[in-house]
Amino acid sequence: MAENGLGWREKVLNLESMNPCIKKVEYAVRGPIVTRAVQLEKELKEGAKKPFTEVIRANIGDAHAMGQKPITFLRQVCALCMYPELLNDPNFPKDAKEKACKLLEACGGHSIGAYSASPGIDCIRRHIADFIERRDGGIPSNPDNIFLSTGASDGIVTILKLLVSGEGRSCTGVAIPIPQYPLYSAALAELNAVQINYYLDEENCWALNVEELRRAVGEARRHCRPRALCIINPGNPTGQVQSRKCIEDVIHFAWEEQLFLLADEVYQDNIYAKGSQFHSFKKVLFEMGPKYSGTVELASFYSISKGFMGECGFRGGYMEVINMDPGVQQQLSKLVSVRLCPPVTGQIVLDAVVNRPEPGDPSYPQFKQEKQAVLDALAEKARLTEETLNRAPGFRCNPVQGAMYAFPRIQLPPRAVEAAKAQGKAPDMFFCLQLLEETGICVVPGSGFGQKEGTFHFRMTILPPLEKLKILLQKLTQFHAKFLREYS
Amino acid sequence: MAENGLGWREKVLNLESMNPCIKKVEYAVRGPIVTRAVQLEKELKEGAKKPFTEVIRANIGDAHAMGQKPITFLRQVCALCMYPELLNDPNFPKDAKEKACKLLEACGGHSIGAYSASPGIDCIRRHIADFIERRDGGIPSNPDNIFLSTGASDGIVTILKLLVSGEGRSCTGVAIPIPQYPLYSAALAELNAVQINYYLDEENCWALNVEELRRAVGEARRHCRPRALCIINPGNPTGQVQSRKCIEDVIHFAWEEQLFLLADEVYQDNIYAKGSQFHSFKKVLFEMGPKYSGTVELASFYSISKGFMGECGFRGGYMEVINMDPGVQQQLSKLVSVRLCPPVTGQIVLDAVVNRPEPGDPSYPQFKQEKQAVLDALAEKARLTEETLNRAPGFRCNPVQGAMYAFPRIQLPPRAVEAAKAQGKAPDMFFCLQLLEETGICVVPGSGFGQKEGTFHFRMTILPPLEKLKILLQKLTQFHAKFLREYS
Repeated sequence: MAENGLGWREKVLNLESMNPCIKKVEYAVRGPIVTRAVQLEKELKEGAKKPFTEVIRANIGDAHAMGQKPITFLRQVCALCMYPELLNDPNFPKDAKEKACKLLEACGGHSIGAYSASPGIDCIRRHIADFIERRDGGIPSNPDNIFLSTGASDGIVTILKLLVSGEGRSCTGVAIPIPQYPLYSAALAELNAVQINYYLDEENCWALNVEELRRAVGEARRHCRPRALCIINPGNPTGQVQSRKCIEDVIHFAWEEQLFLLADEVYQDNIYAKGSQFHSFKKVLFEMGPKYSGTVELASFYSISKGFMGECGFRGGYMEVINMDPGVQQQLSKLVSVRLCPPVTGQIVLDAVVNRPEPGDPSYPQFKQEKQAVLDALAEKARLTEETLNRAPGFRCNPVQGAMYAFPRIQLPPRAVEAAKAQGKAPDMFFCLQLLEETGICVVPGSGFGQKEGTFHFRMTILPPLEKLKILLQKLTQFHAKFLREYS
Repeated sequence: MAENGLGWREKVLNLESMNPCIKKVEYAVRGPIVTRAVQLEKELKEGAKKPFTEVIRANIGDAHAMGQKPITFLRQVCALCMYPELLNDPNFPKDAKEKACKLLEACGGHSIGAYSASPGIDCIRRHIADFIERRDGGIPSNPDNIFLSTGASDGIVTILKLLVSGEGRSCTGVAIPIPQYPLYSAALAELNAVQINYYLDEENCWALNVEELRRAVGEARRHCRPRALCIINPGNPTGQVQSRKCIEDVIHFAWEEQLFLLADEVYQDNIYAKGSQFHSFKKVLFEMGPKYSGTVELASFYSISKGFMGECGFRGGYMEVINMDPGVQQQLSKLVSVRLCPPVTGQIVLDAVVNRPEPGDPSYPQFKQEKQAVLDALAEKARLTEETLNRAPGFRCNPVQGAMYAFPRIQLPPRAVEAAKAQGKAPDMFFCLQLLEETGICVVPGSGFGQKEGTFHFRMTILPPLEKLKILLQKLTQFHAKFLREYS
């Protein structure tokens, strides 16, 4: 209600009248815990006394914010495209200049300020297809099936939009893992689709169990029409890397149950555990033979925000669609044209990632060294996080085989659960908020990702610099020990 | 249907099963005419003989693609942020370096590769608020009401999303001008809201007539719930610049009818006609006194793709919301957080636009000169287009007072209309396709924007370089004369 000098007047757009689907949307990764973290940072800046001197944001996979340095080559190519006068600067390497020139030639008016074609710049789509072919041992990739996007989220939401239809019992159901990355639940809430939960097996390193998938989809068939299955591999928040066998089982299941597959493979470069290996859904699909490769509909997603790049701010990514109905693919092309084009700088960085320096190129040694350093550091931090947490009483942490997160299970005493409920808070939110207030460590409660009833977790990134991560882990385990004492 | 070696199998996602709202979406600016233009370019490249040597894309407001050069200062600031080693380069001016340093300080880990806050980088929101205050003669602007976006389209769709609710007679209706920019119809189709058409007055320079608005909204009340009113000023595709009086009338109408106002003001820097002046809806709203300024809900949109910048590829923009219900504004904040953040390079360019060089700054003279040169050239081309078309028989073109387009009315003989219908095409699409095939000129049929039954138009941009625009206009008028002869 607003006063207008002539009495009260109701808002046109208010909480009662607004889109009810938007109200249902939740996104824990930037939810209330982060709002409080931002407040705390402000209070610290204004001189408030706290039991800590800085807030450590381990809530979101934001590598550069945690101090990871950009890969020089990516920034060089993009800076050259941004300000082509630099093509005369002898400090820039020749291969970066050559790539920038080719990219500028592909831009309208030779400027990255022009709109690109809506699915992305043609030659970048070709470079991506080549990249996928190399990754998948020569299985062909068609540039027409590549759509660049504004980060992977944009691609995922676009495919879900196409899939959603019907109401009541014929409403589209989409199966997602629990725990999940909350983009999925948020998009399904916004689109008013049915979320079908399949639980990952915490006792088995968060593996996907096809029997559980069958249970979830089978039960869902009673009240909706399951039409899509989302997979996150490597897992977010779980850090699990799926075995080839598991992927085969999932593909067979999708074939059997007639489900469109969405493979969120944005962490495909982030594999740390010995014995773990990334298998793309597309490669496994094609290796399973024409019964599957000729029928199972698949969209796979990639992002420059993750991997060794961590260039989140650019909002760059792509999806590859396989076996999509040609008419639907035309509809997809039309749909993405309404938004004109993905950010061109994100496209440029993506090109530099997939069309990277090769041995013999001037930029190769530095590129290789920087890339390896990032991945080695992440592997070390993945190991350290798992080991430290498992040494502490009250934590149980599966191996961080890949991705950028640990999702440890935490013991919360019944008295803490009661205290949380008295405050109307989820018990793990209650824990995380206290952790934040007392230590400045910002992690996201497991309830924001989903977890089995009665279990409690949080997601933390393994991204802080090693020395800071050590301190974080120490503070965290100390705080938890104190918390256990206090509520037992 | 797909063959799998074991017979046919229906696609999970096909034209029957897909989201029916997406099927209804149309976006003429990148529709079939552009698909054909791209094909023709390919054929030309492959050596095909055509009656022309190049396709001139006058279909979309893409200044750089038409040869407009980037404003140096914008690119310098962004290149410095992209590759901070350049801060040591003596060829970059001091003020650009200072701005880049401040922006980098505001980025997580001092990198534009970090996610920003979801509504945009804090200091950029403050700079935008200052910019709006200066524009509006001191009327206060609150940075908390500024949300950066991925181009203006993203902001518009976000607000529409909040507004949509209900079904049948209580379904949200949104009034849009006809002719309109087809983002609006596309977004309303996707969101399954009711599009309410109010016709602009072609006989009166495409002015908005409040009586017509009243008719449209009044009639719509019988079958939906009108809740929002979209205004495009300066007009796209009409080029009309609204008078202060007209804006006052619209605001009064919105107050009276309880409508949320969406003011698409992305062409606010593009004013060419003598006597025309840009008045922001916000300024007029506040000057109308507290009865209005304390109640009427307004969102205004801005973009770096238009104006003198033309930086379309960066996908940068902002919206300012006024009088939004605080609870709804929280929901808006939550909604934008799901997409993490707008592209940071677009935010950086936007900052350089609103926080531009001032007299005395090293970059000021060049910035001022480049900006003025772009705007002067556009004014000259606006005049030339209008005059040339009005001299040719069979065209009638209102003055291009602002924006980047002419939307002339064209005479199509009854025999042409019949021939078009026989081919199942809209008559103006039939004309535009022939124009493209014979001259290589790509313009968009009026039917893609909406027009009064029985009238025919097309939209063309005034962006080609002057000499090319002259040739385009000559070819266009000659083609039309021939077309008239052929079908009369």
